Amino acid sequence: MSGTGARVGIVMGSDSDWPVMSAAAEALAEFGIAYEADVVSAHRMADAMVAYGREAHGRGLEVIIAGAGGAAHLPGMLASLTPLPVIGVPVPLKYLDGMDSLLSIVQMPSGVPVATVAIGNARNAGLLAARILGTGDPELTQKLVEFADALRATAEAKGAKVREARLQG
Amino acid sequence: MSGTGARVGIVMGSDSDWPVMSAAAEALAEFGIAYEADVVSAHRMADAMVAYGREAHGRGLEVIIAGAGGAAHLPGMLASLTPLPVIGVPVPLKYLDGMDSLLSIVQMPSGVPVATVAIGNARNAGLLAARILGTGDPELTQKLVEFADALRATAEAKGAKVREARLQG
Amino acid sequence: MSGTGARVGIVMGSDSDWPVMSAAAEALAEFGIAYEADVVSAHRMADAMVAYGREAHGRGLEVIIAGAGGAAHLPGMLASLTPLPVIGVPVPLKYLDGMDSLLSIVQMPSGVPVATVAIGNARNAGLLAARILGTGDPELTQKLVEFADALRATAEAKGAKVREARLQG
Amino acid sequence: MSGTGARVGIVMGSDSDWPVMSAAAEALAEFGIAYEADVVSAHRMADAMVAYGREAHGRGLEVIIAGAGGAAHLPGMLASLTPLPVIGVPVPLKYLDGMDSLLSIVQMPSGVPVATVAIGNARNAGLLAARILGTGDPELTQKLVEFADALRATAEAKGAKVREARLQG
Amino acid sequence: MSGTGARVGIVMGSDSDWPVMSAAAEALAEFGIAYEADVVSAHRMADAMVAYGREAHGRGLEVIIAGAGGAAHLPGMLASLTPLPVIGVPVPLKYLDGMDSLLSIVQMPSGVPVATVAIGNARNAGLLAARILGTGDPELTQKLVEFADALRATAEAKGAKVREARLQG
Amino acid sequence: MSGTGARVGIVMGSDSDWPVMSAAAEALAEFGIAYEADVVSAHRMADAMVAYGREAHGRGLEVIIAGAGGAAHLPGMLASLTPLPVIGVPVPLKYLDGMDSLLSIVQMPSGVPVATVAIGNARNAGLLAARILGTGDPELTQKLVEFADALRATAEAKGAKVREARLQG
Amino acid sequence: MSGTGARVGIVMGSDSDWPVMSAAAEALAEFGIAYEADVVSAHRMADAMVAYGREAHGRGLEVIIAGAGGAAHLPGMLASLTPLPVIGVPVPLKYLDGMDSLLSIVQMPSGVPVATVAIGNARNAGLLAARILGTGDPELTQKLVEFADALRATAEAKGAKVREARLQG
Amino acid sequence: MSGTGARVGIVMGSDSDWPVMSAAAEALAEFGIAYEADVVSAHRMADAMVAYGREAHGRGLEVIIAGAGGAAHLPGMLASLTPLPVIGVPVPLKYLDGMDSLLSIVQMPSGVPVATVAIGNARNAGLLAARILGTGDPELTQKLVEFADALRATAEAKGAKVREARLQG
Repeated sequence: MSGTGARVGIVMGSDSDWPVMSAAAEALAEFGIAYEADVVSAHRMADAMVAYGREAHGRGLEVIIAGAGGAAHLPGMLASLTPLPVIGVPVPLKYLDGMDSLLSIVQMPSGVPVATVAIGNARNAGLLAARILGTGDPELTQKLVEFADALRATAEAKGAKVREARLQG
Repeated sequence: MSGTGARVGIVMGSDSDWPVMSAAAEALAEFGIAYEADVVSAHRMADAMVAYGREAHGRGLEVIIAGAGGAAHLPGMLASLTPLPVIGVPVPLKYLDGMDSLLSIVQMPSGVPVATVAIGNARNAGLLAARILGTGDPELTQKLVEFADALRATAEAKGAKVREARLQG
Repeated sequence: MSGTGARVGIVMGSDSDWPVMSAAAEALAEFGIAYEADVVSAHRMADAMVAYGREAHGRGLEVIIAGAGGAAHLPGMLASLTPLPVIGVPVPLKYLDGMDSLLSIVQMPSGVPVATVAIGNARNAGLLAARILGTGDPELTQKLVEFADALRATAEAKGAKVREARLQG
Repeated sequence: MSGTGARVGIVMGSDSDWPVMSAAAEALAEFGIAYEADVVSAHRMADAMVAYGREAHGRGLEVIIAGAGGAAHLPGMLASLTPLPVIGVPVPLKYLDGMDSLLSIVQMPSGVPVATVAIGNARNAGLLAARILGTGDPELTQKLVEFADALRATAEAKGAKVREARLQG
Repeated sequence: MSGTGARVGIVMGSDSDWPVMSAAAEALAEFGIAYEADVVSAHRMADAMVAYGREAHGRGLEVIIAGAGGAAHLPGMLASLTPLPVIGVPVPLKYLDGMDSLLSIVQMPSGVPVATVAIGNARNAGLLAARILGTGDPELTQKLVEFADALRATAEAKGAKVREARLQG
Repeated sequence: MSGTGARVGIVMGSDSDWPVMSAAAEALAEFGIAYEADVVSAHRMADAMVAYGREAHGRGLEVIIAGAGGAAHLPGMLASLTPLPVIGVPVPLKYLDGMDSLLSIVQMPSGVPVATVAIGNARNAGLLAARILGTGDPELTQKLVEFADALRATAEAKGAKVREARLQG
Repeated sequence: MSGTGARVGIVMGSDSDWPVMSAAAEALAEFGIAYEADVVSAHRMADAMVAYGREAHGRGLEVIIAGAGGAAHLPGMLASLTPLPVIGVPVPLKYLDGMDSLLSIVQMPSGVPVATVAIGNARNAGLLAARILGTGDPELTQKLVEFADALRATAEAKGAKVREARLQG
Repeated sequence: MSGTGARVGIVMGSDSDWPVMSAAAEALAEFGIAYEADVVSAHRMADAMVAYGREAHGRGLEVIIAGAGGAAHLPGMLASLTPLPVIGVPVPLKYLDGMDSLLSIVQMPSGVPVATVAIGNARNAGLLAARILGTGDPELTQKLVEFADALRATAEAKGAKVREARLQG
């Protein structure tokens, strides 16, 4: 795969993960961060996965977001193949509520960290990638400050609803 | 790695897994099954791991036993690289009693099975390899029948101890 | 039960397990491996279960696949009665998401291994049986290599969908 | 095994379970209930186990206490072979604190109950057997009432220690 | 409460437990065992609960079956108030799949056993009560033997379905 | 926020928690205890949260009820900011059945207690607040005694339903 | 038991809980709050437990702290017998790290709350009692403010150690 | 706190976390990354924590590493106060093997991500910080590539030990 101009690569083991993982893409888009998205299965496309990990840095990617479920090996394997920060999203499957996915991703051995976010929370993976890219990009960091301000404003507005409900309840 | 005459390859992520994994070797030795043992780390030696998986069948291996702990990716990754049966041993680490290792190994997606044994029970991995090899080897299967007979005899002998303890208790 | 020409015996504790276990049969059928399927309840048909385990090898079976849920004793009991490799499928019941089934099957004592696959993943049990039979059957192993190639091709095709979704998202 | 005059049979998978299971024997002895103790391994002595379960009632046993750890199949298998009440003791092994043992014993399917007590608490298995035998034995029930009185007296005496500690603390 | 002629008392913390607990009643009815059923809440009717426990034996009850969910205290409290065997049924609530109910019931301290059955499996509680009563009632024990025969026959019949499905699948 | 005359402050991280948390408000209303309800997000409104905690006592609040889910930090953070008793309600989210919420709330370090109630049980948080306020208010305590009497009467009435069901069943 | 002048009653199921529970007493002593401590076993001293719960309020107690382990019924039972706030301390036993104790205490049904603190953290139970009593006692609340100040000062002092370690490390 | 020239701030709730957290410092030192280390308790030093979070970016920090155990609120609270990436280290406490710490850190709500690493694995937090800083620092990324090479070399050397053990075993 040649360069795509993307700064963040979003990968997942199957297209069935896209409904969960697309939230990472949306978060990046909100911050105007170029990304690419692809299926890179650790268990079905080992060569492609190794190539993806090996080439990510050279192709200009700065962060990888990898989602996987069950015996979720993709985030950790990619982390072993690249010097880039890798963010892992535990995708919940039909059973166990994503606990297997979480442990398979977060419990990495010393030497090979994966930055793990909450079960099924790909949006936070996108936001974490924005924070990481912001370490070298004051404008992006400023956007993150504004994003937090907006979160606060929204949360405050929600308070009004509860206060009213309380009066009517 | 060239051919070693081994029928079973025992691999683990680190030499610190050897005290657990050596029990697989001992079991194979009891059945006179040639094996090799090596460190093949999914996270630290990705190329070697891919090579190991890819070449295992061609080198004459018939079964792979892979032990790993925590976010245990070695058994599943090897299973994706070889048509051979791969037996996974969940190695317990300092925390969580091996539950993370177990789920990381057993919860493989459809298409890529790992034959998982009990937490820390590499001896059973060796015995399972013997059963697998026995499917094409009547003499080995006969040994397994005798092994079961011996287990029974030992268990029966243990009964005597308990019966005596009961009398003295 | 006399010989059925089957190489793999698929057994389960109840016909209510068939919707899960039939995936093992389908996988075997894809590889042209003859199998038989039956209800053999550890808890309701002890004699039949003992007979099944004892006679499996003599009847020509080479691998047993056993599915059970809750206090799932069938795979382990069969493993104690036969020198054949036994593959256990943890069938999830109404509560606990199959965690009870998994632990009841995988945590076997030394001497009696069960090759355990993921919760509810009978397809992988079928594929593992194919790998096991492939150890003595180069043609079957070749089919497994082609199967892995097909998996890869399918996974790669799924990537296209995600890449497009990304463009439209 | 011929009749031993025992009313309760205490069985376990290995003599290594005796340090846990002996507490059941002690409790029965306190109530003057005749018992026998033996090793009957579900996985290593299937025929003996089936025979034990089948013959228990005819030999005069009235209750079976079975202890097992990990994939603990002995209590459930015996319950499937006898009309007698079977009490299961989850023996904790090196990992998982007995949670695997508990689930393997208690989660029996409809039709075959096992009366499960706390992890590692064989004393309670003995006491439960006494309660069961007491249903047809007013003298034994009276002893159980006195036993409860003694428990209360002991607990009350312990209160004095705490009240004093409180004064000195 | 005066005598009701019942041999088994089925109690539960709320009438919302009846859909689960009624299966115990059905099992007892199948064996012709007289029972009574009532709501006895440990947390809402402490005096009635203490009275129920204290008077159970004198009123002629021989076994108590108690179902409760969450912080499930009813079975253990009753066991502390009576010399009768108490069977606990962990009733699953909206969250945690009954794991809280199970641990609250089974993990009783030494001295006060509760015979715990599977999560939500009140039918097995009824069958366990039948086994317990059978220790002093050869006719009932004979019925239990026949019941096991019927279970076996039903299970065998189920095998036919699976064998046919296999042929058509 | 100035004084509202409320004795209890009910706060939650988002208005999406209100369907769970409103049960606390209802319980307080049943006891005629003045309360306020608001959204105070630990993670989105840190300043407002700190202010809420710091000012609660001065504004006349006597108890705080805080509900949160997942990595639930609101109850513990408020407890660190006020000398008032803080009651934590673990709100269950989509995955893990509230186990993450429970552990995040209850496992507070020494020095900063949170009075934790059952998963999703905001009604009990309201009732606990009533008990706490009752320590200085004999009239309120009397109401709580009457409340318990009513609970008992309701539970007893439920018994009638089960006794009838038993007769018809 | 007649009045003891105590405002807080600390109770536990056995004197073996005192090493854990004494930390509640110490915390109360630090705040000059009069307390009593006693063994009140739900399972061994039911009458005494019922009496303790029923009489607590009349004897002048304002808060009850109850510690228990395993199937921990004491806190919930007491809460059902008194209008006072009851604080539950999950005492960890040999297995399961107190998870059984926690669930048995915290998962109370609607109507009967227990204010649960962290596993083994009786000190926090004492501090929570102080907060509760402080709702009607401005002087005590002032002490709690000072206590929090002291906690902060201690924590700040600890920072110096880490900063130095960092320099030397 | 004024600027310290540090690029990474390592904070923890107590100096008792230093034996775990110092491994993060060591990893940073290996890469020549300036860091500061301090105690910043979410629950004991709320103002200092808020100030730390608010000022981190302005003081020149680029990444925060926060360790905490039990109801571990520090990483998430800091993440809500800063636009910097925050890495959370779940510190295991006496009970629950760090599962409470893990869930309290990783299960953050949408909007406020914490990059969580394995239980007790502060070394990986340091390495993840290096990867993050490397996104804007080619020299550092190069060091990470060399670090991975060294890991591989060490792992390969370990293989020799196992191969020898195998020969001698």
